[in-house]
Amino acid sequence: MNQNPEELQFLSSHRSFDGWQKRYRHFSPSLNCEMNFSIYLPPATDQGEKVPAVYWLSGLTCTDENFTIKAGAQRGAAEYGIALIMPDTSPRGEKVARAIDHAYDLGLGAGFYVNATQEPWSRHYRMYDYIVDELPALMEKHFPLDDRRSISGHSMGGHGALMIALRNPQRYRSVSAFSPIVNPTTSPWGIKAFSHYLGDDVKNWWNYDASLLIESARPREYLPMLIDQGSADEFLAEQLKIERFIAACNTANYPVQINMREGYDHSYFFISTFIGEHLRFHARALKNP
Amino acid sequence: MNQNPEELQFLSSHRSFDGWQKRYRHFSPSLNCEMNFSIYLPPATDQGEKVPAVYWLSGLTCTDENFTIKAGAQRGAAEYGIALIMPDTSPRGEKVARAIDHAYDLGLGAGFYVNATQEPWSRHYRMYDYIVDELPALMEKHFPLDDRRSISGHSMGGHGALMIALRNPQRYRSVSAFSPIVNPTTSPWGIKAFSHYLGDDVKNWWNYDASLLIESARPREYLPMLIDQGSADEFLAEQLKIERFIAACNTANYPVQINMREGYDHSYFFISTFIGEHLRFHARALKNP
Repeated sequence: MNQNPEELQFLSSHRSFDGWQKRYRHFSPSLNCEMNFSIYLPPATDQGEKVPAVYWLSGLTCTDENFTIKAGAQRGAAEYGIALIMPDTSPRGEKVARAIDHAYDLGLGAGFYVNATQEPWSRHYRMYDYIVDELPALMEKHFPLDDRRSISGHSMGGHGALMIALRNPQRYRSVSAFSPIVNPTTSPWGIKAFSHYLGDDVKNWWNYDASLLIESARPREYLPMLIDQGSADEFLAEQLKIERFIAACNTANYPVQINMREGYDHSYFFISTFIGEHLRFHARALKNP
Repeated sequence: MNQNPEELQFLSSHRSFDGWQKRYRHFSPSLNCEMNFSIYLPPATDQGEKVPAVYWLSGLTCTDENFTIKAGAQRGAAEYGIALIMPDTSPRGEKVARAIDHAYDLGLGAGFYVNATQEPWSRHYRMYDYIVDELPALMEKHFPLDDRRSISGHSMGGHGALMIALRNPQRYRSVSAFSPIVNPTTSPWGIKAFSHYLGDDVKNWWNYDASLLIESARPREYLPMLIDQGSADEFLAEQLKIERFIAACNTANYPVQINMREGYDHSYFFISTFIGEHLRFHARALKNP
């Protein structure tokens, strides 16, 4: 295992919409394991131009490849001159703790973008630090990116994007989400993950719940925020609970555009339909001086 | 097993670009087994409108799902009001002959769109009949489609589209291909498949080779034809041999638009980049009265 955190191991490269879809492996000190990530570099970077980046946080069970392969996002990224950065959803490897019985909603593929405090998870599951600090520094060192960043994601990753942006508004220009688990401290997926990763004291969960965080956001730090939610999403009522976030935004008077999409479900067919609109939304914020 | 060829078994449905991405299973008399297919119905069909269809033939190892998930073609299909029909690439099931040692280029996933004449393949491997006759009749019976058809595909399926269109110009309005194996009677993939499916007498192969068929095409039956080929395609020199088709088209004086795409490879990142242009090309032919 290469443990030099400065080095990237090249895995693959494909021409895509006149830019490049690439994949690398690196050793992550935050997560104490090797990680894969995918990155799309738009054609603007071929002329040496530095471009802004949208970070995409995927949902349960995903790797860096699901969004890369299924969303068709390269099209808009090429058009708007934006890089896309797709990290994995958890630490990986033989030494990394996994859920009993291969549960899909805990452990591998289910990092929930938190820093775990409980054994055995705390040895590797520090996705919050990885996404907020380590990955942007690594990306901006190795690729033609400046420090203009936006963040988006789906489901677990849609919540991750909202939560991370609310806690670090100075680090992002805009935030968007598809089908986010907006209130994980009251959602079965969130309760299961948080109790394992963060322990039983629910006070330690609050800093990872977007519907609670939004109430303490400072108006001068409000970010452009966009959410798309399918009305036929099979997880809407029990897990996602978009109405909680709408209520919290109203209470906090935080401006957010929420699009309810009639008949759309939780799948990548939903994401691919509207990802172009999300990238246009981020492009406006990223290119606004 | 349901052996009523008139019935479709519904598998799944997803809203996509304001239309519907659906998947079904049916019993195919041509192939003597159950087959899955995917179909995209554009929003125009929601108003009861009958639309034309583009048939997509996939390459080696694919099922009906690869193009459905990876190409992002629904976007253009919705915009142009075209249905997309994605069949599987071979017969399937316990009783269907498979290649020794799970070879990826023979048997399951590798039907090459021919009617096999040799045992054991001839019991099921009749993909030519399935694509040319059975599937369009089934689609036009069950879905809001008229008889305006175009055909496209990738690699093995790119050749299948060219070959089928050249043999049935009256059944299609236009044909296109990505990275087609244009001259399978001289390509290692084609020689292996044709010798197993069609026997050792190469005369019986000629009717399944687009570079040979094009020389006998009648000018009054010429179809609009578009081909995209990546210059960095890892199979270009040994298997695909686009230069053979260019030469054959020149000899036959058959008008064809061939785009060599600098730096693009054999992957779906290539297809997704240019599928929108192909659908626009087909739309012009399909909507031209």
